[in-house]
Amino acid sequence: MSKYDEIRQAAYEANMQLPKLGLVLFTFGNVSAVDRQEGVFAIKPSGVPYEDLSPDNMVIVDFESTIVEGSLRPSSDTKTHAVLYKHWEHIGGIVHTHSTYATAWAQSQRDIPIYGTTHADYLATDIPCAPPMSDEMIEGNYEYQTGFQILNCFQERGISPKEVEMMLVGNHAPFTWGKTAAKAVHNSAVLETVAQMALLTEQINPQAPRLKDALINKHYLRKHGPDSYYGQS
Amino acid sequence: MSKYDEIRQAAYEANMQLPKLGLVLFTFGNVSAVDRQEGVFAIKPSGVPYEDLSPDNMVIVDFESTIVEGSLRPSSDTKTHAVLYKHWEHIGGIVHTHSTYATAWAQSQRDIPIYGTTHADYLATDIPCAPPMSDEMIEGNYEYQTGFQILNCFQERGISPKEVEMMLVGNHAPFTWGKTAAKAVHNSAVLETVAQMALLTEQINPQAPRLKDALINKHYLRKHGPDSYYGQS
Amino acid sequence: MSKYDEIRQAAYEANMQLPKLGLVLFTFGNVSAVDRQEGVFAIKPSGVPYEDLSPDNMVIVDFESTIVEGSLRPSSDTKTHAVLYKHWEHIGGIVHTHSTYATAWAQSQRDIPIYGTTHADYLATDIPCAPPMSDEMIEGNYEYQTGFQILNCFQERGISPKEVEMMLVGNHAPFTWGKTAAKAVHNSAVLETVAQMALLTEQINPQAPRLKDALINKHYLRKHGPDSYYGQS
Amino acid sequence: MSKYDEIRQAAYEANMQLPKLGLVLFTFGNVSAVDRQEGVFAIKPSGVPYEDLSPDNMVIVDFESTIVEGSLRPSSDTKTHAVLYKHWEHIGGIVHTHSTYATAWAQSQRDIPIYGTTHADYLATDIPCAPPMSDEMIEGNYEYQTGFQILNCFQERGISPKEVEMMLVGNHAPFTWGKTAAKAVHNSAVLETVAQMALLTEQINPQAPRLKDALINKHYLRKHGPDSYYGQS
Repeated sequence: MSKYDEIRQAAYEANMQLPKLGLVLFTFGNVSAVDRQEGVFAIKPSGVPYEDLSPDNMVIVDFESTIVEGSLRPSSDTKTHAVLYKHWEHIGGIVHTHSTYATAWAQSQRDIPIYGTTHADYLATDIPCAPPMSDEMIEGNYEYQTGFQILNCFQERGISPKEVEMMLVGNHAPFTWGKTAAKAVHNSAVLETVAQMALLTEQINPQAPRLKDALINKHYLRKHGPDSYYGQS
Repeated sequence: MSKYDEIRQAAYEANMQLPKLGLVLFTFGNVSAVDRQEGVFAIKPSGVPYEDLSPDNMVIVDFESTIVEGSLRPSSDTKTHAVLYKHWEHIGGIVHTHSTYATAWAQSQRDIPIYGTTHADYLATDIPCAPPMSDEMIEGNYEYQTGFQILNCFQERGISPKEVEMMLVGNHAPFTWGKTAAKAVHNSAVLETVAQMALLTEQINPQAPRLKDALINKHYLRKHGPDSYYGQS
Repeated sequence: MSKYDEIRQAAYEANMQLPKLGLVLFTFGNVSAVDRQEGVFAIKPSGVPYEDLSPDNMVIVDFESTIVEGSLRPSSDTKTHAVLYKHWEHIGGIVHTHSTYATAWAQSQRDIPIYGTTHADYLATDIPCAPPMSDEMIEGNYEYQTGFQILNCFQERGISPKEVEMMLVGNHAPFTWGKTAAKAVHNSAVLETVAQMALLTEQINPQAPRLKDALINKHYLRKHGPDSYYGQS
Repeated sequence: MSKYDEIRQAAYEANMQLPKLGLVLFTFGNVSAVDRQEGVFAIKPSGVPYEDLSPDNMVIVDFESTIVEGSLRPSSDTKTHAVLYKHWEHIGGIVHTHSTYATAWAQSQRDIPIYGTTHADYLATDIPCAPPMSDEMIEGNYEYQTGFQILNCFQERGISPKEVEMMLVGNHAPFTWGKTAAKAVHNSAVLETVAQMALLTEQINPQAPRLKDALINKHYLRKHGPDSYYGQS
């Protein structure tokens, strides 16, 4: 028994959803779950195949990326998670994958335009794609700086991680988050679907217009506004 | 035992087909089954994962969207179903999904052109895409007005819901129906396949012509005309 | 026991491969197996779901499309099969599907160009797409005339059904055949894969050249020529 | 018991991964595993379906393609494997498939551009596509010459098979290798995913730039350089 059992279990279960949802090949992804009271999070160990994961081998790390408990090396992306947890105090879980369509948009260095209500059920703006990082950031403490690339993107655009729970790092791949690790995984699957639909939309009609404001507001607010009434179909 | 057991069972079974046929992610879809004698329909509860559905938790609603029986909240799209049942007296089941290819066509705001016999086996026209709704309709009783957007589209084009059992709401997603809930689900799967084939056809040959009238008539009438003889291969 | 047990079993097993190989939605496909000595073939009954098929409900039909044995209606495409068996005396099985990529090429009314060795391992030419049938043929004995559309296409191009075991009927869908029903199904799966690869090839490089003759000859002849030595990897 | 049991087992297990990873249709692929001390490798027999494979029916062949042990005919691509083992002394396993996206790039005769970090996690250059072979090479000892086409491509470009473990033979299909047969299969799956992502990237943004050098170096070196610290997420 450990006081971290709950986040270990949550991180384990969320990580195991990634292959089931078709979001990862081999070990190309990781999920973490945070304990705000203890100031630590549980994250997937590095390079361990999904079939060998268990709650026990999740690694406990604090917001300075120091290992608190666990015998395995934490995911190489741990520093990015730590930066986000430290600066975004309301989020409870983070996911990083290289899912096919979302990664293709990241490689294309384009925001994913909001083309339909599937997208607007989750966020009221395009899905942001941060520009590729500067050489200085890359050559320095890369994974740590990746966290700041994400923070800076949101600050510059004046958008809130409470309202936009998914984004792309240019040339790299998607990150999502949420109140819990499970919700962050849910968002990863939604992002992948929305990314595919957006590409198909442009292929069917290269002049497809962005969703009109009335529909954006209706769909976003019926699920997320103070008077929300919508429970996903 | 309830006099609604039959439609509860039909709605339950039809809803469970959606994930099996790959037509939904999470809870992005709903099916209802009507009892014309009682003037009510059974519909999926809102936001409940497919693995937790049972015939018992289907919600019974009348054509004014009033809950008649059931402890859970009905699907948020219930009012759209109610409007269609009220005005189209011959239909027995309705499906709404956000299936990938059909939704991409809806986002593109284009009818799906009739390019081949797979399409003509089901309907003799392009698959209609209603325009996005007016701001007034969206900001008012949105899900109720969605029903009228569908009705209006069919009326303006002079097509019958008996002959065209599938359509797209622009910027939103597909709706299908049929004599039974099971047939409505069948139509949803056909729509998704036809939507994918139509995009691929345009990619292979941007000048691909619509299907000629003789083939449309032959394929549609051999399955649906008074002298139909065709049982789907 | 019936003297047709062998072809019933062969037709049954081959039909059951179609959903396993992802080549059919619902009942959009059919396979037949011929008995040359008896002058009959066994074919899937019309409109029966794959899960309800058994060797017993395959229908036995002669080359004039007359039912010889069986209580169910044979596939609506039976006349096309009958015409091909009657005129192409060496073939042992026939498959018709509406598989996604092959059907998209048929709808595009284009031959599938020979772009690589995967294609050349099976045939030394483009995969022919017969033009859509004339209105006269369509309005007459349609399924019977479909057989002649296929025969005419091969005759006009001077290609042999021994060397080219797959083709597309324009605006409709693919047909394949082979020495046995199992081989015909194998060819259907190969056609679908080659059709997808050819579209992707054109998307990656719109100027992609056809395969050079030396490679066509090498790959085709090492599997099919008199000195063949190749057993599919 | 045989002194080749270990490579037979390794080749068997690696071959069985190909259908599980969706990299082969029917028997369109083969894997081999080498024993450097004995100067032989174990390879899949020709034309045997995956479900009938066992460690026992792997064929043992030396670097001149002479069968050393085994009653079945070795894969038709055996000579290509032999040439690569003979000239690249550090590789332990080789895979050849006709996986869909990688083959489409090969048919397009284009290198796969390095567009993102998923690619850079594995190699620091574009994935090379060797030109189609000369008629002389094709008409001669074809499978043997295919090995030299691969060797020549690497030599001309001045790249090392230690650093680039995957490539395409123009108009044909991909080959991958690695320290073990299992790693070579891993590389085949990565290649297929990277090939799909690269096509999608060009579809989303035809002007998508290649990955910047700082990101290539960071991602490649954190996994492969002398100071590597990365364990695949």
